[in-house]
Amino acid sequence: MKKEDVLQQISDTWNNNMPFNKLLGLEITRFNAEKSEVSFAWQDKLIGNPVQKILHGGVTASALDLAGGIVAAANIIEKLPDLTPEIIQQSINKIGTIDLRTDYLRPGRGERFFATAHIIRSGSKVAVARMEMHNELGEHIAFGTGTYMVG
Amino acid sequence: MKKEDVLQQISDTWNNNMPFNKLLGLEITRFNAEKSEVSFAWQDKLIGNPVQKILHGGVTASALDLAGGIVAAANIIEKLPDLTPEIIQQSINKIGTIDLRTDYLRPGRGERFFATAHIIRSGSKVAVARMEMHNELGEHIAFGTGTYMVG
Amino acid sequence: MKKEDVLQQISDTWNNNMPFNKLLGLEITRFNAEKSEVSFAWQDKLIGNPVQKILHGGVTASALDLAGGIVAAANIIEKLPDLTPEIIQQSINKIGTIDLRTDYLRPGRGERFFATAHIIRSGSKVAVARMEMHNELGEHIAFGTGTYMVG
Amino acid sequence: MKKEDVLQQISDTWNNNMPFNKLLGLEITRFNAEKSEVSFAWQDKLIGNPVQKILHGGVTASALDLAGGIVAAANIIEKLPDLTPEIIQQSINKIGTIDLRTDYLRPGRGERFFATAHIIRSGSKVAVARMEMHNELGEHIAFGTGTYMVG
Repeated sequence: MKKEDVLQQISDTWNNNMPFNKLLGLEITRFNAEKSEVSFAWQDKLIGNPVQKILHGGVTASALDLAGGIVAAANIIEKLPDLTPEIIQQSINKIGTIDLRTDYLRPGRGERFFATAHIIRSGSKVAVARMEMHNELGEHIAFGTGTYMVG
Repeated sequence: MKKEDVLQQISDTWNNNMPFNKLLGLEITRFNAEKSEVSFAWQDKLIGNPVQKILHGGVTASALDLAGGIVAAANIIEKLPDLTPEIIQQSINKIGTIDLRTDYLRPGRGERFFATAHIIRSGSKVAVARMEMHNELGEHIAFGTGTYMVG
Repeated sequence: MKKEDVLQQISDTWNNNMPFNKLLGLEITRFNAEKSEVSFAWQDKLIGNPVQKILHGGVTASALDLAGGIVAAANIIEKLPDLTPEIIQQSINKIGTIDLRTDYLRPGRGERFFATAHIIRSGSKVAVARMEMHNELGEHIAFGTGTYMVG
Repeated sequence: MKKEDVLQQISDTWNNNMPFNKLLGLEITRFNAEKSEVSFAWQDKLIGNPVQKILHGGVTASALDLAGGIVAAANIIEKLPDLTPEIIQQSINKIGTIDLRTDYLRPGRGERFFATAHIIRSGSKVAVARMEMHNELGEHIAFGTGTYMVG
């Protein structure tokens, strides 16, 4: 398999078969070793505080965690010698979040949100990613830092 | 109003009127200045990874954030000179998560989950809480540390 | 006093009168509301691991904390209506680190190190800064995120 | 070698041969897989803020990082099948801090400080420790959480 096809297939799986991602409407819109992006639309069910009408902090953390996890995944796939389905699946199964820090900068208001991630530490066992979340106006809503088990 | 009634009323509001908490089934089951607890049942829609059948990391972060936020709220209410509805509402509206760190210790498996929180720094402007999440077997699934704006 | 003079005076104080900064050789080389920089030279006494000859992680954390703290300070001074010595001193005294996260990316090797910081959340009570540390070759050694009490 | 002797030898090495630990006066006073402790005395050179006469935040981070690192080391040694000098050295060399979060609870005042650590996640590749720092009066000065590479 070509790397692009592998990433497309994983992206499809995560967009369509992950219950919680679907519940929140999280969609992987960019996915490679350089940068990943997760996008989602405002929905009333994502409201944390009904008086202020802002996203629950857990929604933001979920989007950042997914964005960081997929850029970590793309980095592993980048390094695989062979892209057989078995090797890919084994690699993906090893990925897990060790820790995640979210910094909330502004109230989560907007019509659409974009969580992007890039790798700041790329090892054979552990990867670290930095994430950002903006709304459709480019307002910066949150920062994140995630440490992921990758091997 | 008596303090116990105030906490009960806030707890009812957060359990019934917060869309995202309801979506996840998060329920405040203990709520005072000493310790708070948020409990929720396993639901398939909370699955992050369908192969491993474990909670999405964002679910864990959401429960920890809520547990930390309410113990921070209870600490503020503890210090209020007067418990009028206006003062209470003003205080509650000031609460916001500044940052949240989640440490994932074990895969999120179980039938019911319990996120507890206690305050480690209690100031007039900023409070810091430490959180833990266990399942019904007492297995320790996650730790959290949250910094909250409170004044 | 003019703002530039105020910043220069604070910078001189922190470079010359702070015992631990002097012990480590930390020097404020840039200091304004946009961006701050702390620089220090390699010294054998800063070694954490003598086999690998790399900086102790605490040295890195110290430099990042200082860089974040001074950019937070510059942000407060930026907002002060009057720059009298009393008001400045009062503002500076309120600054304190609430929490600090350091991400170690590469072993701390080099002849000179540069910790830079910029503000990502600027409030009247709490400021959040992101920091980076590089060596003289531009190699990226660490990232940091700090939350500071400022009011 | 017996495990106790191994730990004693490592402890001696870290207390006597680590330049930065010696500079700060950090001493390993307890060191096993259950719990580690690092102790140090107040010294004027550790002052961050000379007006308030409190420890620099970097001193606290350094002590917490060491306490976490050694409990992670003790956990690895606990699992080693053979305690030959080569295997021990190889294991120790793999240890490195991935990330460290410090929560500052109270000003760092006291005559003597005690940083303790215990493991909350013990894996073959990554360990996570939680740390606390108190002074001689039992006042709680800081919390820490550290993620360490161990394999």
